[in-house]
Order: sequence, then structure tokens, then C-alpha cells
Amino acid sequence: MKSDLPRLMEKRGLDAFVVAGGEEYSAIRDYVTNGAAITGGLILQKRDGEPLLVVNGMEIEEGRKSGLDTRTYAELGYMDILKDEKDLDKAHILFWGNCLKAIGVETGKIGIYGVGAINQYLEYYQMLTETYPQYQFVGEKGLTLFTEAMITKDAAEIERIKSVAERTNLVLDQTWQFIAGHALNADETVIKADGTALTIGDVKRFIRRALLEVELEDTHMIFAQGRDSAFPHSRGESDQALKAGQSIIFDLFPRELGGGYHHDVTRTWSIGYAPPALQALYDDVMTAFDISMEAFGVEKPTSLMQTAVLDFFEGKGHPTARSTPGSLDGYVHSLGHGIGLNVHERPSITHLRDDDRFLVGNCVTIEPGLYYPDKGIAARIEDLCIVSDSGELVSLTPFKKDLVIPIQKA
Amino acid sequence: MKSDLPRLMEKRGLDAFVVAGGEEYSAIRDYVTNGAAITGGLILQKRDGEPLLVVNGMEIEEGRKSGLDTRTYAELGYMDILKDEKDLDKAHILFWGNCLKAIGVETGKIGIYGVGAINQYLEYYQMLTETYPQYQFVGEKGLTLFTEAMITKDAAEIERIKSVAERTNLVLDQTWQFIAGHALNADETVIKADGTALTIGDVKRFIRRALLEVELEDTHMIFAQGRDSAFPHSRGESDQALKAGQSIIFDLFPRELGGGYHHDVTRTWSIGYAPPALQALYDDVMTAFDISMEAFGVEKPTSLMQTAVLDFFEGKGHPTARSTPGSLDGYVHSLGHGIGLNVHERPSITHLRDDDRFLVGNCVTIEPGLYYPDKGIAARIEDLCIVSDSGELVSLTPFKKDLVIPIQKA
Repeated sequence: MKSDLPRLMEKRGLDAFVVAGGEEYSAIRDYVTNGAAITGGLILQKRDGEPLLVVNGMEIEEGRKSGLDTRTYAELGYMDILKDEKDLDKAHILFWGNCLKAIGVETGKIGIYGVGAINQYLEYYQMLTETYPQYQFVGEKGLTLFTEAMITKDAAEIERIKSVAERTNLVLDQTWQFIAGHALNADETVIKADGTALTIGDVKRFIRRALLEVELEDTHMIFAQGRDSAFPHSRGESDQALKAGQSIIFDLFPRELGGGYHHDVTRTWSIGYAPPALQALYDDVMTAFDISMEAFGVEKPTSLMQTAVLDFFEGKGHPTARSTPGSLDGYVHSLGHGIGLNVHERPSITHLRDDDRFLVGNCVTIEPGLYYPDKGIAARIEDLCIVSDSGELVSLTPFKKDLVIPIQKA
Repeated sequence: MKSDLPRLMEKRGLDAFVVAGGEEYSAIRDYVTNGAAITGGLILQKRDGEPLLVVNGMEIEEGRKSGLDTRTYAELGYMDILKDEKDLDKAHILFWGNCLKAIGVETGKIGIYGVGAINQYLEYYQMLTETYPQYQFVGEKGLTLFTEAMITKDAAEIERIKSVAERTNLVLDQTWQFIAGHALNADETVIKADGTALTIGDVKRFIRRALLEVELEDTHMIFAQGRDSAFPHSRGESDQALKAGQSIIFDLFPRELGGGYHHDVTRTWSIGYAPPALQALYDDVMTAFDISMEAFGVEKPTSLMQTAVLDFFEGKGHPTARSTPGSLDGYVHSLGHGIGLNVHERPSITHLRDDDRFLVGNCVTIEPGLYYPDKGIAARIEDLCIVSDSGELVSLTPFKKDLVIPIQKA
């Protein structure tokens, strides 16, 4: 969690970090500025020091809401630099020196983090290295400073995650009721009161509105039917009519409005009835879900959970990402992932990585699935879970796991 | 525009580019994949070749919607790499070699672009350079390959931009009507039918819903009143009640749902009546807006337009970013910016940069403003304009520029 940052910096030999980046939403910027609504600037922190937020004067009021020591570019001498240096990139690099001095770092190893234009920062890195022999600027891959800090959530984060979960469960229920409130025609098409087909686009519009009512925003939900459902990341065709007896994968991962903590849930639905092949697939996925929850143990490697699911699916004759790497049939993905300000964080729950363990404060998805594109059927079930203070895996997605949405005949 | 890419690559001596990056929305990825709904992968293009899209198997269906040659990681040998290389970062770097071979580039200068974790790509750059002596990997700052391509929009882009503009103008009108439909109490507070205050949060909720109805999404609108309005990027306090006679800065820059082209418009409103000081400020801004439009000339430096506005404001006694750099009073920002898939693109309309010229196909904002935080008043007017085929600057924001929203007494 965030309070681990000084310890995690020490482990990496970092004397300071700089969070840079562009206008894109950046989970790291959100994390270190306590959600300040800024679109640029720099955040610098000396190990065992307090963070300094440096913003454009236009963003000073929003920057101050971070609660951090907040200064403008002008206050830290940027305008003086511009008097002599007309190249804005070079001026920006010179400004880093002012900022590093402002946090009392005259020498040492500086980690650069953030989300930005890769091409630009490759150039900036060269310029920084040439301009400042007294600093050693470094990047980091794999389990980075912030990736590692974010693996566990503190009490304030868990509270926000629980609130997002409650609101998402409400929207799941509203969506179920919305679909169930329609009717099937003789063609097994779901129709509206006016007799026209209910489309995936209609359902997505309903969901986006419902999310907005509870101050959440959609981030590319999946609502995919039939063959589409069998490609895990196919989002569904807006103009497609809902039909009875088709596998529908509904994967919703909304976040707090404007950027923030996520929920992540998947339900598999079939309207009216479930064909036997889909029901059998669904039963296997539900069993795998139960096996996952039973395989959990705090401090245990996360890979053991995935292995238990791989063993089960392979025993039932399904190809998997372990038995048949690259297959588009069967169980083709990992079992789950950490989640927070990013939709994908650590720990990973995969057989490809055996260095992640479950820890108190984890917030993870558990999402076994089976996919058969040629048969046009699929099933996935996903709950978001936290590892509680007492070391239990607790689902925050109580919404029912029924396959069939009952519906009336028109 | 996009068809300029080969020429712009040649100008930079690039034999190929690779668009990489993380799960964040990336305008460049959107641009080169024609809006494919993917969350990762690589796009590679040889100069004078066709782009190749490489995606995770789970995203193959969405990837194919790009219309590009689309292959999965497995098809290009990633699973074979994983057999011998368990370090996923190293495996990814080895995979770049497969992809570069697949587009027929065996040697040469390769530009790396995209939006991603800066720390990760600083490491990847070192690994790529060490792994592949036959390639020279480069970044780029300033006017980059894609920044330069995006300066002008093609006919298909202009069509989408016009559609977003029409829908945004509709929402502006709905918002005006929404506010005007309320009433003022004796306290000069805007109240709802139940007598409670209409807050900025209420207005923002109305706007977000209205945007959703026309398939647009908010990206952090500004609706700031009184003192807040005088900090150009203050977004406004949700729990603040709307009051009569206050300067309200309403800056809306929505985009196509899920990421895409933007509109960008600002109106300054005062409910019921305008105090003389605000009216005078507003009149100066409106004059500056007219001066801007008159200063336009296709092929002319964009900085001339900013200079004309600076001259006018300084002549009226306002501090500016030229006369008083770093000031929070007066005209504290640039006059405008290009806009497209990114909310801020080139050309810039600023006195700090004299190398941008207006070109047919530009899509730019024109947004003079004046800010006085200590007096708690401000005004900004912004239209989005395109440079038409005939070389005219045409506003796509016809919505009225009235300062005062008439309102009834309760």
C-alpha cells in the first residue's frame, strides 16, 4: 500500500522518484496525488520525504486538493528558464533540476514513473542523463515500485472498492430486470413493447445510464452473444438482436466517475432456456469457480489456484493455455488479476508466474471461463474478491450466478 | 493526415515504426487501427508497406475490425519463445524480432511510439538495443511522426468531427434550457421545484446524461463559478449552489463514446443578470475572439493570431502571459490548440512557438479568456474551428454566445 513506498524505494536503492507523463489518465498520478484532477505536472518524492506536486498555474486550485505541498511551474523558476531557453523540451528538462533541488535531492538514483508518450520519454531520458551527471535516472520493468505498492490496498482504498462493488451489483440487478422485462417472439428474438428487437446496443445504453446514476462510468464493457461470446475480449455487436438460448458473456468493469477504483464482474446468461451443451459448459465453469475459492490460502502462491483449475478443466477434456498454448478453444486465459485504479494489477493468478502470493489487502478477480468459437458457446464467471484482515477470500460480487434469465412469450 | 505517414517516415529516415503501449487509451493506437477496440498488442508498419496488427488471441475478433492484416501472438511464434524464455519481459522483447521480420524489416531505423508506462519502456529500450544490433531504435520529441500527421484531418475525420460538433451543440442548448427552467429565490440562489438549491453537481449530472443520449462521453468538463471560474482549469465544486450574477465558465470537451474525436467549447454564463465588471470583461473577451477570427490566414503563422490578441489585451491594460509570464491574473494561456483524437494537438496558437502555420484540414480551438481570481470573475469563449478546403476558418460551434441566462423569480 501507499505507506510502503519509502520501504519499497529503499529496496530499489532509489533516492527519489519522479512521476511524469502526459494528459492521459494515469493511475500512478491519481494514486500519489490522492485523485487530484490535474492533466500534467510532476510529482517528486525523496525517500523518507513528503511528495511535492508541481503544476501549471492554471491547475493550482485542483492541485491543492491533493493535500500535498503544491507549487506552480512559475514558483519554481520555469519562467526564468524560458527567458534563455526557447526550446520547450530543453526548458522542461532544465526545470527537472529545479524540482529535484526543491525536494532536497542533489545527487543519487532517481526512478522515473508515469504514463506518457513512449517516444517522448525515450528522448527525455537521454537529455536528462546528459544534462545531469549528478543523477542516475532509471526506469523499471516487471514488479515496479508502484505495481508492488498497489498489490495491497489500505483501509481507505478498500472502503472505496466496496462502495464501487455495491453500486455495480445494483446495476447488474437492474440489467437482469431490464432484460427479463421484455418478451420472446415466435422467432425466439427478444422484443420490446413496440415489437421491435431488443439489441445489444439497447442493453449497453441502459447499462451506461444506470452506471451514471450511481456515479460510475463504463470502461468498454463486454456484452457478447453466441459466437462473439466465445472470443473472451469481443465486446459484442450493437445492432445484434438478443435471442433465446444463446450464451451471453456480460463482463462489466466500471470505475469511479472520471477515473478511480474499479469493479470487475462477469456473468454468463442465456435468455429463456439453456441448451444442454451450454448448461454443461456452464456447470464446468461453476465447478472451476468453486475449486478456485477452495484453493485459496493466504500467503500461498497464486499459481496454485490456477493449477487447480487447469487440472480440473484438463481432466474434463478441455484444452487449456497450459496443455495447448495459443489455443482459441477451451480455457484460454489466466484465472485472475489484481485490480484497483488499474483494471489489471498484480497479483496475477496464472501458471506463467510463480512469484505472486496472496496477501492481506489484495483485491483480485477470480474468473474461470471456457470458450468454443466453432460451436458458438462460452461461459465465464467472475467475482471481485478481497483478502480480508483475517486472511479470508471474500467476494464483493454477491449478485446471483443464475444462467437462465426467465422471460415471457410475446 | 494518415496518408502522409510514409512521406513523414521518409523525412525522419525511419524504415519502420512500432506502436506499442499499455492498456491506457492511446490516440495513436486508435488512429492506426481505425478505432479497433483492443487493449494491447503491437502495430508495425514498414515505410511504403501496409500496417500489421498483432494482438492477443482473445482480441482477434476486435482486432480484425481494424481492416488491417491482423495476426495473433501465437501465430507469430510467441508460444515457441515462451518454451525457452520464462521471463515475460525478455520473451516480449524477443517477440519484437518476430514481428519486425513479419513486416520484412531486417535492418534499419525503427521509431517507437505509443502511450505506456514510461518506466517500463525505458527498460525495454535498453533491452531492444542490446538484443538487436541490426536495428537502431529511436524515440522522438517535439513535432513527432504522429503529431505531424494528425495536424491535418482527412475527409472521413472531418465528417466525424462535424458529427461530434452537432451533438455537442445540442447538449449546450439543452444545458442552457435546463438552467433557465429553474428559478431564483430571494437570496439569488437558483432553486429547483422543491425549493432546494440547484448545484453544480446537478448540472454536471444533467450534462453527462445528455451526452450519453447522443453517444458522447464527458472527459472532465469544467463548470466553475465565481472565484473557481478564475482558475482556468478549476473544474467546479459539485456541492456549490448556482447563484445569480456570478461568472460561470462552462468548458465542455466530450469525445465519441469509448474514445475518439473530441469537440471543445467554452461559454461564459451569468444567471439572471451580469454585474458591470463581468460584462466589461466579457466584452473584451468577445472582442478578442473577433480579432482572432479576423487575424486568421491560411498558411500564416498561428503565432500572429495570438500576438494580435496579446496586443489587444495589453492595450486594454490586462496582464498577459507575454507581459507578465507566470501571472495568474489577466490572459494567462495560449489562444488555442489543435484537437482530434487527443484533446490537445498541434498546431499550437501561442507566442511561445512560431513554427506552426494554419493549414487546410486543421481542426483548432480559438479560446481567449481573462481571469481575475482576487475579484472572483473570469470570462472565456471557445469555438472549435476547421480550416476548410477553400482556406476559410469555419466555426463548428454555432451555439449562441450570450452571457446572461434569463431566469424567473421564484
